[in-house]
Amino acid sequence: MQGKEIEQLTKLIAKLPALGARSARRIVLHLLKKKESALPALITALQEVSDNVKKCPICGNFDTQEPCAICSDGSRDKELLCVVQDVADLWAMERVGVFRGQYHVLGGILSALDGVTPEDLNISALFERLGKGSIKEVILALPATIDGQITAHYLLLRLKDMPVKVTTLAQGIPVGAELDYMDDGTIQMALSARKEL
Amino acid sequence: MQGKEIEQLTKLIAKLPALGARSARRIVLHLLKKKESALPALITALQEVSDNVKKCPICGNFDTQEPCAICSDGSRDKELLCVVQDVADLWAMERVGVFRGQYHVLGGILSALDGVTPEDLNISALFERLGKGSIKEVILALPATIDGQITAHYLLLRLKDMPVKVTTLAQGIPVGAELDYMDDGTIQMALSARKEL
Repeated sequence: MQGKEIEQLTKLIAKLPALGARSARRIVLHLLKKKESALPALITALQEVSDNVKKCPICGNFDTQEPCAICSDGSRDKELLCVVQDVADLWAMERVGVFRGQYHVLGGILSALDGVTPEDLNISALFERLGKGSIKEVILALPATIDGQITAHYLLLRLKDMPVKVTTLAQGIPVGAELDYMDDGTIQMALSARKEL
Repeated sequence: MQGKEIEQLTKLIAKLPALGARSARRIVLHLLKKKESALPALITALQEVSDNVKKCPICGNFDTQEPCAICSDGSRDKELLCVVQDVADLWAMERVGVFRGQYHVLGGILSALDGVTPEDLNISALFERLGKGSIKEVILALPATIDGQITAHYLLLRLKDMPVKVTTLAQGIPVGAELDYMDDGTIQMALSARKEL
């Protein structure tokens, strides 16, 4: 009844993260109503990304240049390496704009349940980078979940004999949060890591 | 830091209905990770829709053929016309698959707040269709909101002197609903429209 082109597009959009059949139909209708403006602009933008964006061979970030803008930025600190799970985390760090070192994207974290082993992650490239000797500190900015902490622990063990300082992001109460709404684990962690003023 | 192509695509996706900056970033990352599969398929599907889908000049539905598959389907009842607000409502009716007549999409409803007048809607084309004389019943399937009911009332007044039966969708308790969770208006409506068994 809707023509197979519309159905096919709806199906593809429904598979994108955070979307389902209903929101996909809404998006397709929105695009059909803006066939002269939003639709061609979206097609062009997707095509540009498809043609020009590459994965950085050094850190794993996505960018139009190779190596990416961060890896080739001479003003950034080459001694500081921040290890993240995903490009999304790298983007989050960059939005804050405080970190001036470089990144290494693991492309996932170890998971016994999902069968993710060290070989599945971008770990050997990490040690290759460390082997070159210019990195002095590795910041493990991995998720504060069990799998994230297991991955951090695994990397820490392998980094123990290398001449680098290994640090991790501080855990505690997020800025702006009320104690009443915090989970027990966070309060416990914040209390045991309390700082003298 | 991300390259302007990625930023531009994220901006366009964030403007789609039901999406925002965060979900747009998630979708862009998902597409970047599937640059060889999901991304080209999505571009092709969008291009196909852009090239082939047209608005039906009779009813206002979107389809690849002109007039649309519903308007040109000889087996459908030409005496029954269902008036809906939007193509989304037409699709919802078609998903049910029970209605075998034809449609007329208004493209909106009257709204004093948003300044929508009868001239802004696809109403003159509706009366042109009715003037041809083959339609015997008009079903007003408009939203059960105040604006929807005002639009239905407006159409009813204009249809009064025409030789057509005017009906509207029944209002009452939705299938599967519990009385306890229904709003007062719905219960009141269902009670006053109660049926003898």
